[in-house]
Amino acid sequence: MKLATLNDGTRDGQLAVVARDLKTAVVADGIAPTLQRALDDWAFIAPQLDQLSRQLNDGKARRTFEFEPRRCMAPLPRAFQWADGSAYVNHVELVRKTRNAELPASFWQEPLMVRGGSDDLLGPLDDIVVADEAWGIDFEAKVAVVTDDVPMGATPDEAFGQIRLLMLANDVSLRNLVPDELAKGFGFFQSKPATSFSPVAVTPDELGDAWRDAKLHLPLRSTWNGRLVGQPNAGVDMVFNFAQLLAHAARTRRLRAGSIVGSGTVSNQNVKKGYSCIAEKRSLETIADGKSVTSFMAYGDTIRIEMLDGDGKSLFGAIEQTVRPTGYVPPAPPVSAEKPE
Amino acid sequence: MKLATLNDGTRDGQLAVVARDLKTAVVADGIAPTLQRALDDWAFIAPQLDQLSRQLNDGKARRTFEFEPRRCMAPLPRAFQWADGSAYVNHVELVRKTRNAELPASFWQEPLMVRGGSDDLLGPLDDIVVADEAWGIDFEAKVAVVTDDVPMGATPDEAFGQIRLLMLANDVSLRNLVPDELAKGFGFFQSKPATSFSPVAVTPDELGDAWRDAKLHLPLRSTWNGRLVGQPNAGVDMVFNFAQLLAHAARTRRLRAGSIVGSGTVSNQNVKKGYSCIAEKRSLETIADGKSVTSFMAYGDTIRIEMLDGDGKSLFGAIEQTVRPTGYVPPAPPVSAEKPE
Repeated sequence: MKLATLNDGTRDGQLAVVARDLKTAVVADGIAPTLQRALDDWAFIAPQLDQLSRQLNDGKARRTFEFEPRRCMAPLPRAFQWADGSAYVNHVELVRKTRNAELPASFWQEPLMVRGGSDDLLGPLDDIVVADEAWGIDFEAKVAVVTDDVPMGATPDEAFGQIRLLMLANDVSLRNLVPDELAKGFGFFQSKPATSFSPVAVTPDELGDAWRDAKLHLPLRSTWNGRLVGQPNAGVDMVFNFAQLLAHAARTRRLRAGSIVGSGTVSNQNVKKGYSCIAEKRSLETIADGKSVTSFMAYGDTIRIEMLDGDGKSLFGAIEQTVRPTGYVPPAPPVSAEKPE
Repeated sequence: MKLATLNDGTRDGQLAVVARDLKTAVVADGIAPTLQRALDDWAFIAPQLDQLSRQLNDGKARRTFEFEPRRCMAPLPRAFQWADGSAYVNHVELVRKTRNAELPASFWQEPLMVRGGSDDLLGPLDDIVVADEAWGIDFEAKVAVVTDDVPMGATPDEAFGQIRLLMLANDVSLRNLVPDELAKGFGFFQSKPATSFSPVAVTPDELGDAWRDAKLHLPLRSTWNGRLVGQPNAGVDMVFNFAQLLAHAARTRRLRAGSIVGSGTVSNQNVKKGYSCIAEKRSLETIADGKSVTSFMAYGDTIRIEMLDGDGKSLFGAIEQTVRPTGYVPPAPPVSAEKPE
């Protein structure tokens, strides 16, 4: 099934079940008010949501309505954990080269993992608000899973069984704030503004054969200002699969239901597949020509992140964000020539 | 007022108001079911909780009961953010010396901040469960604030006005896992198991003069296996106050209500004040004698963290934890000689 969170003015929004084709939806408030509440008691709630999903997909659900991504918050508008692994080590190696940082050999043996802010996760169409364009605004296209409870010390197999949902993420970085932060030795903080997520979160069974070996074997499409700049396959060159990422995260502590764990920026060694973040493109330019020519994002820039199934249908809906300065007020719509009688 | 979360078998527990002397409490379920829900709508909820608190302290509340810290979960058993600043730069400098890591000059100008796992926060009497005693188990005594919504780019003064509650924390570290993690350059992950918090969270007005300049000017007492090993004053040598820590955290993103921000391990330059973590003691030993003699915690070790007011009364109640291996089962209580007739 596919689940979305509709913006109803509350902090956690309202849980909705969305049809497989993303055309219609139905509010699930009779089953669970929010996605977190569903995850808190998944074994009991999921079968009920699944039944509603079947009715919706069969055209038998009542009180359905048109599904509009612009009404969506992140599937989890706030979460108790958002940890991102760097599973595509190729990406890490490329980005490090640009800042002349060495890649420790351990990166190929053990996942690198960083916690992001999870108190404020953005909806798929929310603006990327950045106070200073000079901070080096970059998108980062990722795949993420949402877990049930994972016990401390879980094996990858055990952890795999606790994956409940998958989503896409745009985990924006402020590249020009990174070097000073990493120099302190404790990782990113200010260089990571709020992350946005796809309109829907989907259960693994919706993905069919594309979900195997705890990897999602489909191209992740990044379209920057209307130009397709990346379509690396998320199942290729993923050095650590989601089961391994979860086991890594749970080595010394439990993960509680609703934890989000990301794949890291999706990246293929085949450069023809393009890029899922600008830093990688700049690295390739630097390696080839001694300098980077592609600039980071500017105010007004748009980024669209989407994944299509084998038939060209959108699986998660699209993240479509625009970069805006703090306090941006959209222009008023044109006044209609018609006047009330 | 003082607020606690009682373990009622749910993930978020039940909100209770606790008397100033920590002797009695009253369930606040008629006002807000959980502390997070209270924080979500603080302007509306807090005055009601405050009224109940006054009744309780005046001996006029109904359905009161004895306050038992063993029934407590963390005030926020799970939170949407747990970010820790290293405000006592003295501590950072000492601990870095032990691992021969340099202290960048920027550490004195700008806070260092790290996100911890917030999906699983421990109650004050919960065991510290660690799979391997050889991981270098260390306590870390800290002060933490809980915020309301803080806008992106807030000044320290603006952020200060959004502080709603204070708590104590034991932010355990696994010291022997730290070097390999920090070598990767992205900060701590597995080296930070679950953090525990004091029985109650208190509003700033409960602290009187001790809460000034956005610092808490009282000794933080750490008692390891029954021996008082540290009582540094949390208001002394705090290089960045909580207002500055919050402004740092909110520079590129909003903080949403219920975010927890920590002070870092409390440490005074006056070594007679003892230590709030073993790593610091070991550093001092290494500096003095070329080697450390104090071992990290062993299974069965206890740590008590508490703060007393000027009259010797406990402000937050005590964190009292025991280190245990995974799967530890407490011995059965002795069978009573008395038998039912």
